Amino acid sequence: MGYTEKHYTEVRKAQQKAYAPYSQFKVGAYLITKDGQTFHGANVENAAYPSSICAERSALVAAISQGYRPGDFESITITVDSPELASPCGPCRQVIKELCDDDMPVYMTNQTGEMREATVAELLPYGFSGKDLDL
Amino acid sequence: MGYTEKHYTEVRKAQQKAYAPYSQFKVGAYLITKDGQTFHGANVENAAYPSSICAERSALVAAISQGYRPGDFESITITVDSPELASPCGPCRQVIKELCDDDMPVYMTNQTGEMREATVAELLPYGFSGKDLDL
Amino acid sequence: MGYTEKHYTEVRKAQQKAYAPYSQFKVGAYLITKDGQTFHGANVENAAYPSSICAERSALVAAISQGYRPGDFESITITVDSPELASPCGPCRQVIKELCDDDMPVYMTNQTGEMREATVAELLPYGFSGKDLDL
Amino acid sequence: MGYTEKHYTEVRKAQQKAYAPYSQFKVGAYLITKDGQTFHGANVENAAYPSSICAERSALVAAISQGYRPGDFESITITVDSPELASPCGPCRQVIKELCDDDMPVYMTNQTGEMREATVAELLPYGFSGKDLDL
Repeated sequence: MGYTEKHYTEVRKAQQKAYAPYSQFKVGAYLITKDGQTFHGANVENAAYPSSICAERSALVAAISQGYRPGDFESITITVDSPELASPCGPCRQVIKELCDDDMPVYMTNQTGEMREATVAELLPYGFSGKDLDL
Repeated sequence: MGYTEKHYTEVRKAQQKAYAPYSQFKVGAYLITKDGQTFHGANVENAAYPSSICAERSALVAAISQGYRPGDFESITITVDSPELASPCGPCRQVIKELCDDDMPVYMTNQTGEMREATVAELLPYGFSGKDLDL
Repeated sequence: MGYTEKHYTEVRKAQQKAYAPYSQFKVGAYLITKDGQTFHGANVENAAYPSSICAERSALVAAISQGYRPGDFESITITVDSPELASPCGPCRQVIKELCDDDMPVYMTNQTGEMREATVAELLPYGFSGKDLDL
Repeated sequence: MGYTEKHYTEVRKAQQKAYAPYSQFKVGAYLITKDGQTFHGANVENAAYPSSICAERSALVAAISQGYRPGDFESITITVDSPELASPCGPCRQVIKELCDDDMPVYMTNQTGEMREATVAELLPYGFSGKDLDL
């Protein structure tokens, strides 16, 4: 399908739900499943900064909590209020790696609607995954 | 309102969504808002263990991502497959503290339906919050 | 032995190592082992807030990385630049619970040298630990 | 200077300090500063899996807690007990990005002494950093 105007409209709606009283840096995520369901995600900050949770992870855990499983996702779009394009933090890349296909696209947008695309594998080269655990 | 049989039925449904291939320890959370909406949460593990996210936080960030704000929650119920009663980990207590009223009840259940209740404040004595930041 | 002036002097030194460019909220920790070794800890923030690490955990993982094991610790002292007494966040309480005796004292101080003491067990009532995993 | 046999000897020593009772997956890190100091890091697990901390971060926060600052580091070497080469998880890449130069080498080794090298920038393409916060 690929990226459309709707991806941007929706991710900007998601972003408005952000709870970011400490950084004032609002992030939104818009997750689409292969069977056509969608999930909004927003960052949820905490006075104890390390307990904050990002938009990408908010969307993904919401989907898993409704029964979706690793591999069920078609794309994730993220946005920020900045001229810089959004970019997932390391922990979000790790969670995306666990739950999404290596070739799934991540659409990174900014406040003016520009977009950069990368796959999950490109964002976490030599990514650590279950097969490294060698259990 | 208080704890009812429905709380337990629902939290056990939430628990079935857990993605816990590493610990096999499935946790469920059932969050109720003051205006009567409900959210399921399940734990979402990761091959990189520290990137795992708990059931309580899954439910709370899903709610925030749909527009709920701190103080909008009436109760959270959690459950595990163990004779021990479920108990939120430290990070979950910190997130609950940020988003829920100090006197909100946390219902901790186990596999046989026993329940223990504590308030948010009781679970995080001298809890760290925004007013400690003294910004 | 109990809390002495030296605890406060040392924890204030540790605090000066804090890397806190985002919150400007510098935290220090001073960890003492049962065999008399000491470790400084400081908070280490990150532009991606959830990847920040607190002072208490910095001190504890430094000690484990030098060979200390759970149960080897005598006390931990923490401090902040605020009239409020320092208080460990939820994640730090969880790590302290894993690595320290339940009756180990946590000394919480502030910028003027006031101190409040609590045990590990008091800071994480019904704390989640290895025995809950029921492995 | 580059990677030498000593890097491997030291990182294997660091690994032996790992506290990994839940995954049995022991990880070691060996950090060298530009002024020639060295730090061992080991992973420190937790019954509550998300509260675990990795070897790379253990080494880095120990160094910051002794006064080292971002940019003071020359290399980090990591190792695991697996035929697969060690690879930093997403959160560790985020912390390395914050504290280390973009062209600093990360040496990833395995149980038989093989080694792969990548820079910080290569491990976190389009990495999120302080300049994205646009504060």
